[in-house]
Amino acid sequence: MRNVEHYKKGYYMPPVVDMSWAYKDCPDKAPVWCSVDLRDGNQALIIPMSLDEKIEFYKTLVAMGFKEIEVGFPAASETEYEFLRYLVEHDMIPDDVTVQVLTQAREHIIRKTFEALQGVKNAIVHVYNSTSFAQRQQVFRMSKEEIKQIAVDGAKLLQRLTDEAGADYRFEYSPESFTGTEPEYALEVCNAVLDVWKPTADRKAIINLPSTVQMSMPHVFAAQIAYMSQNLKYRDNVVLSVHPHNDRGTGVADAEMALLAGADRVEGTLFGNGERTGNVDIVTVAMNMFALGVDPQLDFSNMPKLVDTYERVTRMHVHPRQPYAGQLVFAAFSGSHQDAIAKGMHFREEGNEQYWTCPYLYIDPHDVGRTYDSDVIRINSQSGKGGVGFIMEQNYGIDMPKKMREDFSYFVKSVSDHKHQELKPAEIYDVFEQNYLNVGWPLKVENFFVQKFGGQWIGKILVKADEEEVILEGRGNGQLNAISNAICEAYGIEIDNLVYSEHDLDRGSDSRGIAYFGLTDKQGRTTWGAGVDTDTMTASIFAFITAINRMEGMAQRVRFRHLTSDPAAVSEFKAIAGQH
Amino acid sequence: MRNVEHYKKGYYMPPVVDMSWAYKDCPDKAPVWCSVDLRDGNQALIIPMSLDEKIEFYKTLVAMGFKEIEVGFPAASETEYEFLRYLVEHDMIPDDVTVQVLTQAREHIIRKTFEALQGVKNAIVHVYNSTSFAQRQQVFRMSKEEIKQIAVDGAKLLQRLTDEAGADYRFEYSPESFTGTEPEYALEVCNAVLDVWKPTADRKAIINLPSTVQMSMPHVFAAQIAYMSQNLKYRDNVVLSVHPHNDRGTGVADAEMALLAGADRVEGTLFGNGERTGNVDIVTVAMNMFALGVDPQLDFSNMPKLVDTYERVTRMHVHPRQPYAGQLVFAAFSGSHQDAIAKGMHFREEGNEQYWTCPYLYIDPHDVGRTYDSDVIRINSQSGKGGVGFIMEQNYGIDMPKKMREDFSYFVKSVSDHKHQELKPAEIYDVFEQNYLNVGWPLKVENFFVQKFGGQWIGKILVKADEEEVILEGRGNGQLNAISNAICEAYGIEIDNLVYSEHDLDRGSDSRGIAYFGLTDKQGRTTWGAGVDTDTMTASIFAFITAINRMEGMAQRVRFRHLTSDPAAVSEFKAIAGQH
Repeated sequence: MRNVEHYKKGYYMPPVVDMSWAYKDCPDKAPVWCSVDLRDGNQALIIPMSLDEKIEFYKTLVAMGFKEIEVGFPAASETEYEFLRYLVEHDMIPDDVTVQVLTQAREHIIRKTFEALQGVKNAIVHVYNSTSFAQRQQVFRMSKEEIKQIAVDGAKLLQRLTDEAGADYRFEYSPESFTGTEPEYALEVCNAVLDVWKPTADRKAIINLPSTVQMSMPHVFAAQIAYMSQNLKYRDNVVLSVHPHNDRGTGVADAEMALLAGADRVEGTLFGNGERTGNVDIVTVAMNMFALGVDPQLDFSNMPKLVDTYERVTRMHVHPRQPYAGQLVFAAFSGSHQDAIAKGMHFREEGNEQYWTCPYLYIDPHDVGRTYDSDVIRINSQSGKGGVGFIMEQNYGIDMPKKMREDFSYFVKSVSDHKHQELKPAEIYDVFEQNYLNVGWPLKVENFFVQKFGGQWIGKILVKADEEEVILEGRGNGQLNAISNAICEAYGIEIDNLVYSEHDLDRGSDSRGIAYFGLTDKQGRTTWGAGVDTDTMTASIFAFITAINRMEGMAQRVRFRHLTSDPAAVSEFKAIAGQH
Repeated sequence: MRNVEHYKKGYYMPPVVDMSWAYKDCPDKAPVWCSVDLRDGNQALIIPMSLDEKIEFYKTLVAMGFKEIEVGFPAASETEYEFLRYLVEHDMIPDDVTVQVLTQAREHIIRKTFEALQGVKNAIVHVYNSTSFAQRQQVFRMSKEEIKQIAVDGAKLLQRLTDEAGADYRFEYSPESFTGTEPEYALEVCNAVLDVWKPTADRKAIINLPSTVQMSMPHVFAAQIAYMSQNLKYRDNVVLSVHPHNDRGTGVADAEMALLAGADRVEGTLFGNGERTGNVDIVTVAMNMFALGVDPQLDFSNMPKLVDTYERVTRMHVHPRQPYAGQLVFAAFSGSHQDAIAKGMHFREEGNEQYWTCPYLYIDPHDVGRTYDSDVIRINSQSGKGGVGFIMEQNYGIDMPKKMREDFSYFVKSVSDHKHQELKPAEIYDVFEQNYLNVGWPLKVENFFVQKFGGQWIGKILVKADEEEVILEGRGNGQLNAISNAICEAYGIEIDNLVYSEHDLDRGSDSRGIAYFGLTDKQGRTTWGAGVDTDTMTASIFAFITAINRMEGMAQRVRFRHLTSDPAAVSEFKAIAGQH
């Protein structure tokens, strides 16, 4: 690609590169989470949130379980100042929640920040200055010593104003643009700040390392974190925090690897909102822990509601493929995936498996408030019998024979292909009904009865055929056999093979049953029919007639063999059946 | 979170865990890229692509530089079959492009696949079967040996049909659901397949390892790849490929780390389309290389066009924060970021820097076809003087004094806050014009002239003040000084400090200049004004008058000191100035 020669690595390897963290495979406990949605999300939105929207978002964060929430940059914006005052004045900060305020390391800004904090019990004052090579060179045009002095002066002022306020605030320092800073220098600045604060076990300091611009692969970031973790002074009394961004699309991996490499805390946002490509998505990092059996200490059990709130207050949207939260992340359209999922679900119902192991679904959609019905198996022209069968079984209790599913799936695919759209369960049911349940042409059952004489059954069936009411009669070794013989003999139908099954329908208390017939003719062609009735025999006859009706050439047969019955016999039949 | 006890790790560590790849910090050359957009993207869409859409997408992929393109699953869908035939019949496969077709390891499917390939010169036949523990247990209910046999039988059939066709097709095998497969077993199956194919240096085989469901952290996936790479038979003649998905939001990291760990090839899609959370986004992986100075061998220099095509044919959209491609990924709304970017851009213009190092912008937006004007500095209520100043300079050539930028930015922020929306450059210019250029009240300059007598300048200015035309006269050591004295003396204005600057306007050939005045009164309050004219003196006087007009209490002063001039003198003044 053109201009590739204008680029070089913008990051710096630490003097000691330690990758031993990579021999741990995943974090074994939740870090301290700090939401920066209200600050970083806000300043990155086309339309910043209003006060009411901030309040709603804040309440959502508290309800999810966040214990540290950056509420903004009160000295930089009147809205953010007012917002913090609103929380204080309406007593909206629970005792176990700490609010965090961001400030540049500049005196008048720090002073204004402290004003905003009056009356807050638990606060973190988060001071930062930029330390990267590029910012020192291009923005501040200052030496390393001068930049370090800004940090130290800021740290001292925080200490002094906190002492003056008689408050117990905790402190956080960020060498902003850490990822473009030489690690040795970042360490030097952080240690100089820590020497001012002298953190103790009772009052730990937070050192936060932001990938302001993500510049390296995640394991390089982790090596930088490992170096800092191993060389920070007062390490036992330091909470090491990371604040990954996502310029390279690897924010989640940055956070996870940093946790292995020594970080104790993660700053991020819901769904990765934030400047440019956004901050690390805390939802994904936390849910990744959940999926490996580690309790993330945050509650995502109603993800659809969370998505709804987020989209409303930020005016951003959650992408359909956003892990764990997007509309399509549990969706399977393709036949082979649907089939495997349906089998996995059945296996699970058999109750053998303690753990979630269903193919193609990383987690159980129910655990984030999604449904199997509408979110998982979705039907379009790419779908197959497994999926279509699953939908019919889950939604309508219809468990048709395997070969019938295949037959049915062709109808469904072709309707989807023709309409050029996805089919919802009700539309799929319509396809089923029109093709297998309501096929009353060329033969329509009007009534029937069966009687046993000695070892044989006699079946009589009144059908409407070619606009004529006709009585057909047959004998057999069972009721159905007698009826089917009546029809086949009347129209000269030869059946080579037959599949039959029936089961109760799982709908309400009317105890209806459904019967399925698959009839294979001498040419090996199979047609299917289904019938529903409270009486199994009736359901079976409806199913049989539908299968017969769908046989190739059936209309011609009925027309060719135009049968008639004595009107008196028809009347008598109707009388016996109680019909007038 | 509830139900966390239902989860455990679903992946398997390789018997030897090698993390030595982590001591390389990034890939040093582009892998072989294989686009699976036409297959995997297609089968994951709510509305699958039509033939015409597939053709357009295919052409786009070829134009970008893809040399291997999976065109679909021709045996599984009539559309995909037709699509491949269309490419063949319309001679649309360049000699240096290989089309890849996917097939399950089942005989009738493989045979249909070969039919679809007739007439194709360069093809990869990609055969797969599922090997994971869960699929063996729940879907196939088969032993390891039986599952391996499916792979071996498929491999043999590929070989036989290729021989029969006298073709030169290359082969690819995927142990599908590799990430849920024990690595030793995956290795055993792959080696059994390779023993069938016996790849040579002239006809290498592709072994593709899909994270069908992403289950582990990326370094664990990389360790699995390293194990496979180190233990595959015929390794020199094997192209080791990965096919990452994104269930954990770490698909990009998976691909990058796999490349360090031994992979030679990446299968993925544009913008990460694909089943559920999608495949790895090849755009991001490739652009990540670009940003580190490695040529990705794919062309993204017109990203907006690529996004447009993608969105049209897939009916999906690219998220505004999607790395490198989203609408907001270069946007800076916040004041401090805007300021640093503006300084970084200036530093760059000074020409010191060979490489792209601008703060807060990972790459130069121009390199992907984006603009500085509308994509980078964007103005809303969070923005500051740096951004507003940058917009005015970039778009209108207006480089106002630093303190004036600050003054101006308050106006702009308040307009944005009030309108509750982002302001476009033209709207920002309107705010400038209304506040600094067109302030002709309470004083309006009608005309002026200056003369030198001995060592002194005399300035006369005709203003309209309080509906009255008045001539003001003053003396000074320069032209402007004389005019300003005329005004200040007439209305009793005391100026404590004064900032003045002017420059040419970079617009067209009319050589207009712009002048700026900042006037500070005895109370330390500063007001600003600007003036534009082809004559610098005129521009300066307009600027001065605007700054005067905006001083606090100026309207009262003019009303209080209601000055009058002799109408004859006014007529004479107008005559001299050539105005009637």
